[in-house]
Amino acid sequence: MAGRLAILSGSGALPVALSSAHPHAYCVGFDGVAHALARVDSTHAFEEMGGLFATLKAAGVTEVVLAGGMSRPALDPARFDAVMRDLAPRLVAAMQGGDDGLLRFVIGVFEEQGFAVRGAHELLPDLTAAPGLLVGPEPSEVAMADALQAADILRALGPLDIGQGAVVAGGLCLGIETLQGTDALLRFVAQTPAALRPKAPGVLVKYPKAGQDLRVDMPAIGPDTVRNVAQAGLGGIVILPGQVVVLERADLIAAAEAAALFVLAREF
Amino acid sequence: MAGRLAILSGSGALPVALSSAHPHAYCVGFDGVAHALARVDSTHAFEEMGGLFATLKAAGVTEVVLAGGMSRPALDPARFDAVMRDLAPRLVAAMQGGDDGLLRFVIGVFEEQGFAVRGAHELLPDLTAAPGLLVGPEPSEVAMADALQAADILRALGPLDIGQGAVVAGGLCLGIETLQGTDALLRFVAQTPAALRPKAPGVLVKYPKAGQDLRVDMPAIGPDTVRNVAQAGLGGIVILPGQVVVLERADLIAAAEAAALFVLAREF
Repeated sequence: MAGRLAILSGSGALPVALSSAHPHAYCVGFDGVAHALARVDSTHAFEEMGGLFATLKAAGVTEVVLAGGMSRPALDPARFDAVMRDLAPRLVAAMQGGDDGLLRFVIGVFEEQGFAVRGAHELLPDLTAAPGLLVGPEPSEVAMADALQAADILRALGPLDIGQGAVVAGGLCLGIETLQGTDALLRFVAQTPAALRPKAPGVLVKYPKAGQDLRVDMPAIGPDTVRNVAQAGLGGIVILPGQVVVLERADLIAAAEAAALFVLAREF
Repeated sequence: MAGRLAILSGSGALPVALSSAHPHAYCVGFDGVAHALARVDSTHAFEEMGGLFATLKAAGVTEVVLAGGMSRPALDPARFDAVMRDLAPRLVAAMQGGDDGLLRFVIGVFEEQGFAVRGAHELLPDLTAAPGLLVGPEPSEVAMADALQAADILRALGPLDIGQGAVVAGGLCLGIETLQGTDALLRFVAQTPAALRPKAPGVLVKYPKAGQDLRVDMPAIGPDTVRNVAQAGLGGIVILPGQVVVLERADLIAAAEAAALFVLAREF
């Protein structure tokens, strides 16, 4: 029997898309993490990973995909099972670093347990965008220069484990994505006093961090991103081809058309 | 007769401090730029720099200091005098870049006109902080590690002409200063959802950009910065010794004591 896939589900539309494409996958939810799946096969506490590993093995699972948003859980050490107690020292070390360090650790633990860890982009090739204009008017020369500058900013920050997004308008940086995420960044940009805003509308660039493991944390855009970009007064979005999730594509395209925004997949 | 100093005044407390320390200086205001000086000797439009140069020379001015905040003015080309018409092509080029490029251009123009351009830190040596703890409790080890990480972020961004400030808490970046300035950054950090906040309170680091010309744009902190840092839930502020303006020092120290925040001058 071929190995079975398990979808370890966080919040958002990505686990739903994976579950539709892989209807026989084993679906896992986590205590304290909202998910949008119609059903999960079992729900687990982060404190009891030993129970999760045993359940997955009993269900014939050989490969897993981690998908959707998971805020850093508040772990209760008193509830740790034996597996978590063994992992605790390395977990403490991994939690000192940024998200990437923690997620690389999580991947490593699943691999040690004998699971192959797959990326959502491998399981859903249509999830990302091929190079080219996805929707909207052709970006202006100024927009292309702004996108290049934002990409340079993200490249400079990648080694520091920061930044999947940056906004540049008319050569001036209006915001850099931090822990709070893209929507918070766009709300911040929307509050820029008019007197400070350059004439150029500006561009949001969403790229993975340099060296980021796409198997756990892929940057994503969706219809809400497009609406927030419009609210922030920007002219469009640039994503990296093949490496940024495009959620609810039809709705996203409709939202971009309604706001006359471009969405371009291109490496700068 | 020794040359006279002119203070070209933007907003804020810095021009006031300069004017107190140099009571015989010639004080210049600009149309559309609020200033806090009790009096200015003349007020000029950015469109008529030829008039400003002539006025300064007639007043015996040989050195100038640009001080205080000036948002990018909306220039009306129809009002340009002959000097500004001559400068226009180079001005257009300089305006494409970030603030540093524009300010380097402005310095160059004053120098071409025969003025020496001085830095506020040269004219007011007490303006900045000597290395050491200015006020507050000794920073924790976590706070020192956060400060180092924020300094690394600023160093990475300096070549891109971004970032005089960054906030890191418990190894996670909560915000990077962009065009909107430090107070906007701190308001953004204050809005971080509690669930996302690390346990460590976090640190604001204010450094000049790498290669920044301190004669025109020095980073500054004041009592309001301290209050906003407290509002954002951070534990303290780190500034670069000798290169960050400390405005209204007595009030700043009182505000930091009231909020139990540290202010440390140290190069990381």
